[in-house]
Amino acid sequence: MSVATSGGAPRARLRTSARNQLYGMVTAIVHGPINAEVGLLVNDRIVIDALVTNTSVEALGLHPGGTAVALIKSSFITLLDDVPGLRLSARNLIGGTIVAIIEGPVESEVVVDIGEETELAAVVTTQSLKDMGLAIGRTTLAAFKASHVILATEA
Amino acid sequence: MSVATSGGAPRARLRTSARNQLYGMVTAIVHGPINAEVGLLVNDRIVIDALVTNTSVEALGLHPGGTAVALIKSSFITLLDDVPGLRLSARNLIGGTIVAIIEGPVESEVVVDIGEETELAAVVTTQSLKDMGLAIGRTTLAAFKASHVILATEA
Amino acid sequence: MSVATSGGAPRARLRTSARNQLYGMVTAIVHGPINAEVGLLVNDRIVIDALVTNTSVEALGLHPGGTAVALIKSSFITLLDDVPGLRLSARNLIGGTIVAIIEGPVESEVVVDIGEETELAAVVTTQSLKDMGLAIGRTTLAAFKASHVILATEA
Repeated sequence: MSVATSGGAPRARLRTSARNQLYGMVTAIVHGPINAEVGLLVNDRIVIDALVTNTSVEALGLHPGGTAVALIKSSFITLLDDVPGLRLSARNLIGGTIVAIIEGPVESEVVVDIGEETELAAVVTTQSLKDMGLAIGRTTLAAFKASHVILATEA
Repeated sequence: MSVATSGGAPRARLRTSARNQLYGMVTAIVHGPINAEVGLLVNDRIVIDALVTNTSVEALGLHPGGTAVALIKSSFITLLDDVPGLRLSARNLIGGTIVAIIEGPVESEVVVDIGEETELAAVVTTQSLKDMGLAIGRTTLAAFKASHVILATEA
Repeated sequence: MSVATSGGAPRARLRTSARNQLYGMVTAIVHGPINAEVGLLVNDRIVIDALVTNTSVEALGLHPGGTAVALIKSSFITLLDDVPGLRLSARNLIGGTIVAIIEGPVESEVVVDIGEETELAAVVTTQSLKDMGLAIGRTTLAAFKASHVILATEA
């Protein structure tokens, strides 16, 4: 697959406030009565699961083999410690290393390096930052629900 | 404001699965240490309030008088009955009339006409649909948090 | 506190599509430059943490000792197994027992009894339902971010 190459042009044009934008190739689409579950292969390690309406699948012309970008707001990401036996209903769970923290009085931003020169930004409460002892260099898991992913394509 | 005119070209290019895309003019930006609150004037009746990171404000070049589009996933919208005295922390509250309902076994999509040829789609549980007695022709309020809005611009 | 009693009247009037509505008493408000973190004591076991804008705190007249209702859409809730060492950034984590499941082709609704005649509804993908082996009678943890909570009051 040539995601990196094919994504080149669109990347220059689409600009959103969603801190996290992951380009990938659509692998599978499972339709329900209202929503469809769309798999997006970002790289060898990462498949994003997105839940969008059937209307959107059609409007965007999504199809297996096509490209799309997953937009995920930083405030929709929950950080977790990776512990044995961890199981959760959030379909997307990506491991990485914390590389930056911007601490505010109420909310803080945590930037996680997830490999292949890709980062995920998560906004968590500063209280959680302290409770979890999050710090630069620590590993963490970034979790987000499929229903929180917006997909975009460009004509 | 020339939103309608200037938005013509971008509208054709940007395609996202966010069912709700409202074009507008940035009216004000209030910065905090991590996030900024951005006001977006959609029309005479509607101002969208969006909470995005400062990094995004800079990356998108957002400034008062500039244009942007607010993306809101249908699953982020809560529908409410308009009752006297109701006060809600969700910064965005838009009234309208239900014009379409697609009912699924678990979730249903409700389309609300909010005037000026604009519609908002909301996905709610089918249980809520029944509990609230939502039906075509009924008025309702669509509420969503500022922190759930993604802003987009195009280069 | 008389949440149950004081909540009686509002419960009858407030109707929203947010499946989860938890009445409580405001315990603490921590202000940041844009957002405030609001604690809501629902019962002896449960304190809800909500992140709303300062503007909303003022508009709703929120103050320690006052009452409010937390609205949480079922699609904002992630279910987790309770395992030793579990730590996550989501501020709200409520344990309970699964009492009902409505299974759809793509998404399913899981109803969790969290005690004191209160239930939380979560919408998860049917794939997650199967992967986690969620079933009636099993215990689970419902997690949601403070930034996903809408607060409401009534005059």
